[in-house]
Amino acid sequence: MDAYRAPLRDMAFVVKELLGLGRVNHLPGFEEATDDLFDAVQEECGRFSQEVIGPLNHTGDQQGATLQNGAVSTPAGFKAAYQLFVAGGWNGLTCDPEYGGQGLPNLMGAPIEEMWHAANMAFTLCPLLTRGAIEAIRFAGSEVLRSRYLPNMVGGRWTGTMNLTEPQAGSDLAALRTRAIPEGEHYRITGQKIFITYGDQDLTDNIIHLVLARLPDAPPGVKGISLFVVPKFLIKEDGSLGARNDVRTVSLEHKLGIHGSPTCVLAFGDEGGAVGDLLGEPNRGLEIMFIMMNAARFSVGVQGLAIAERAYQGAVRYANERVQGIPVGMTTPAPIVHHPDVRRVLSTLKSRIEACRALAYYAGQMLDLARAETDQTRRAAAQARSDLLTPIVKGFCTEIGVWVSSEALQVYGGMGYIEETGAAQYLRDARITTIYEGTTGIQANDLVGRKLLRDRGAMVRDLFEEIRTSLQSFAGQHAVAPVVVAVGRALTSAEEASAHLLAVSQTRPEEAFGAAVPYLHLMGWLISGWLMARSAVLAATRLDEGTAEADFYHAKLATARFLADHGLRICDSLHASIVDGGASLLAMDAAIF
Amino acid sequence: MDAYRAPLRDMAFVVKELLGLGRVNHLPGFEEATDDLFDAVQEECGRFSQEVIGPLNHTGDQQGATLQNGAVSTPAGFKAAYQLFVAGGWNGLTCDPEYGGQGLPNLMGAPIEEMWHAANMAFTLCPLLTRGAIEAIRFAGSEVLRSRYLPNMVGGRWTGTMNLTEPQAGSDLAALRTRAIPEGEHYRITGQKIFITYGDQDLTDNIIHLVLARLPDAPPGVKGISLFVVPKFLIKEDGSLGARNDVRTVSLEHKLGIHGSPTCVLAFGDEGGAVGDLLGEPNRGLEIMFIMMNAARFSVGVQGLAIAERAYQGAVRYANERVQGIPVGMTTPAPIVHHPDVRRVLSTLKSRIEACRALAYYAGQMLDLARAETDQTRRAAAQARSDLLTPIVKGFCTEIGVWVSSEALQVYGGMGYIEETGAAQYLRDARITTIYEGTTGIQANDLVGRKLLRDRGAMVRDLFEEIRTSLQSFAGQHAVAPVVVAVGRALTSAEEASAHLLAVSQTRPEEAFGAAVPYLHLMGWLISGWLMARSAVLAATRLDEGTAEADFYHAKLATARFLADHGLRICDSLHASIVDGGASLLAMDAAIF
Repeated sequence: MDAYRAPLRDMAFVVKELLGLGRVNHLPGFEEATDDLFDAVQEECGRFSQEVIGPLNHTGDQQGATLQNGAVSTPAGFKAAYQLFVAGGWNGLTCDPEYGGQGLPNLMGAPIEEMWHAANMAFTLCPLLTRGAIEAIRFAGSEVLRSRYLPNMVGGRWTGTMNLTEPQAGSDLAALRTRAIPEGEHYRITGQKIFITYGDQDLTDNIIHLVLARLPDAPPGVKGISLFVVPKFLIKEDGSLGARNDVRTVSLEHKLGIHGSPTCVLAFGDEGGAVGDLLGEPNRGLEIMFIMMNAARFSVGVQGLAIAERAYQGAVRYANERVQGIPVGMTTPAPIVHHPDVRRVLSTLKSRIEACRALAYYAGQMLDLARAETDQTRRAAAQARSDLLTPIVKGFCTEIGVWVSSEALQVYGGMGYIEETGAAQYLRDARITTIYEGTTGIQANDLVGRKLLRDRGAMVRDLFEEIRTSLQSFAGQHAVAPVVVAVGRALTSAEEASAHLLAVSQTRPEEAFGAAVPYLHLMGWLISGWLMARSAVLAATRLDEGTAEADFYHAKLATARFLADHGLRICDSLHASIVDGGASLLAMDAAIF
Repeated sequence: MDAYRAPLRDMAFVVKELLGLGRVNHLPGFEEATDDLFDAVQEECGRFSQEVIGPLNHTGDQQGATLQNGAVSTPAGFKAAYQLFVAGGWNGLTCDPEYGGQGLPNLMGAPIEEMWHAANMAFTLCPLLTRGAIEAIRFAGSEVLRSRYLPNMVGGRWTGTMNLTEPQAGSDLAALRTRAIPEGEHYRITGQKIFITYGDQDLTDNIIHLVLARLPDAPPGVKGISLFVVPKFLIKEDGSLGARNDVRTVSLEHKLGIHGSPTCVLAFGDEGGAVGDLLGEPNRGLEIMFIMMNAARFSVGVQGLAIAERAYQGAVRYANERVQGIPVGMTTPAPIVHHPDVRRVLSTLKSRIEACRALAYYAGQMLDLARAETDQTRRAAAQARSDLLTPIVKGFCTEIGVWVSSEALQVYGGMGYIEETGAAQYLRDARITTIYEGTTGIQANDLVGRKLLRDRGAMVRDLFEEIRTSLQSFAGQHAVAPVVVAVGRALTSAEEASAHLLAVSQTRPEEAFGAAVPYLHLMGWLISGWLMARSAVLAATRLDEGTAEADFYHAKLATARFLADHGLRICDSLHASIVDGGASLLAMDAAIF
């Protein structure tokens, strides 16, 4: 089983050099986020990830979470690791200091989250969901609810869950049936929820469920959904835990991967109704849920990046150890990393992982600016960019993550197919990331419907303008010219594709939404490619200046160049599919399958 | 759990209409392979696949093969199913009638094999390996060995295995260490072999292992490897079974998928040496092994197609049942198959599956012509084409198979991630197909090294010439024009890529072999795209003539058209990667990872 090694240098490059903490830490609330703090926290987090949760990844997968007598047990070691996680203050890193958090920007939080997920995705899902619940309560909760729940949740002493899905209501939340009946100041919740990640666990004393349900007088559809806070154990006036609430774990799912994380079927109200509080206004639950959801979507994008990095590391290690045959151009048997095809595969993985890392951290930075910019116009622009990026980070980084984990397994040959090796687990774990918190198709519909069409392309035009100006500023830099050309080509493709979708959306909306996923990929390639071009320019500058880390910057340059030739050209076929492929798509009637 | 439904009409279209049994059944030995026989055998095979082995696919996965007291047990139901398989005469369908086979052409065998693998890949691996062993013994065995083994193996009463891999010798067989010491007329074999599919089982009385090993005086490397026949039970003079041979199952692998098929570690000679016979000449084992290997590679290509079809069928069924949301352009909730994005996904899967089916069956037909053509020149041309196609069918159809099974899972959303649904098994099972019998990288090296470079491009030029002439003959056919244009573009890409690889191979062989996998994909798209263009022309003709199956032929036309817009354009980026990407690939030194 190979150990995870946090890629601290690569992370620091993106955070400190490419994006810059300086862009964030002059804003109110983020003053402490200096380069020095970043270095210290990163190093400590690397250690925690590598030494505490990393070693539990494979054993957690083999053992899995279990349900006995109605109670869930996490795999051996998870509880002790969680206690260290909480004791280290990791849970509240990016949370509001008012409730015990450390208020660090997402630009610092993203690489930390990457490390956790890379080390142990099944473990890290628990704090991921908790943070989403914290965000929702902070956004919509009364002062009573905030003070009742947030200090313990931010501190990690209680965890949070998201209860959306029901058997008939997955992507379509309009179909949900769970009911909430008012009773005094509270509500009684009745219904069944499925796919509840960490819906029960043995890590903490209490679990705070956020539950979507309908009030008796609610209008049908999405406009009649409210959000409720339903704790596993009721909380007394003095803050201590009271009676067990009417929530029961019915069963655990047998999943392809993330075996260490319990995925629960939860029954609310078998004995008369679980007691809950309304969060926010009646029938406005979906809006609040989207607060959680957007935070979670960003995190799942980071997860896709993380699992890709982990799988890649395993493949590199194996390729450096495994001797098979005499590579072309050599004269004696050598590790397979020297075979040109293996180099091609590893180069492809490395270049796409670095592109995803730049994209994900960039989105983190925009989340920070959207929250903290003091200038109204700048804040609105950052919010728009952040809104645009969320579905792209989620969709693009997870699709790349699944693909990378599969290609990494391939590097092992037959050994990759044997579970003991560990490569298969990365693929099994990664495979959920394109599905939960909204499938890639849902992300793409969001991108086209809410981000492109709603403002008739204003958001994307701002982005295209920024990219064009940026590329123009690189003119004459010989070392990066091929990358700039490739990104410029992708930019033209994205502009034409956007114009095409805007044009057809009114007469043939099926065509626009049928091209949504290729469009999401195209935008993902464009933005990440642009960030890689900027990385290359930065690396070329460092090399010109005469750096002590010449190998590192040469590698950055070579990797961006590789992406230009062996990645970005995919945009050509995406463009063709979107712009030329409408008629052939619409001709494929549902009856044809 | 969804049931498999054999796509008989689609199969018949490729075999009878696109490729034509008439091209084969005028040749000696294949006279019986008429359209009527094809229909009858197909229907019967469809029933067997759907009713006998199909229902054991999921249970076999859940239960898995087990090892107890040194003996392997297959999952419940496998033995009874195998007995029906043998009783139905299925095992020897394409085998030599001299030894009890039915001598049917591969053009008929390929769809039958597709059905078996689609219904139950883990089960069908056993006859797949047996057929490879039969081919090797028939090709290289003395009359004594042939008559001792072939009747029982062709009849399915004994099974066969391929024993190549050792821990240090995977893709690099030169490194193998298993030894064979002469003893009278026999040899004593000692060594350990890994990854032996059906290395032990409880289906038959005997198992015939073909084992690669070194003679005491063998030269090092691949020129010192010989092939031995080592039965599990020795065979007496009268043909009855004698003593147990010195072969022992040490352990079974815990694999990502194909749980129903035992993957064994076999120890030969723990008690002094397993008794074996030399097959063919000393030190010529690899050549014979390639006979088995090529047969197996073709079959694994079919397997990739098969698992893709099975996964697709599941996704289609789910998409037609699952109601979520109101699709764009509709006014009431409807099954998700009506969402444009789901239609795009299913169209993509369908079009690529049909392209793979045409490619795989075409390769089957070329195998037949290479064996049966009476004209020397025609036979040589068919052999060359078949040699060219083998790595492409293996590499391309399995890569598509893995991708399709992953995309099909995605259609289910969260349900796809739950093992009970069955979609996850298809992905787990499919994932081995790009690895065993030579990884995609190995296929691509074979394609570039032995098929493109060895004859300086003669083989591929013949193919390009045939495709060009064929496309020219379609000029003026309006309905298929976009497909013809797309294939023509792919042809140009493939020609330029071939010329480029030939040019760089002498000065920069690393570049040529580094581009081998993209080249394999490019060739796969070209050939399968060309066959889809021919399908489209055929469908357009039928429609012009006024067919009773208008819907069927319209679908064929639409599917080819869809592939042109949403599949074949990938060739643009493959071309760019091969032709423009050499320098950036070589710049990615092994130290960079």
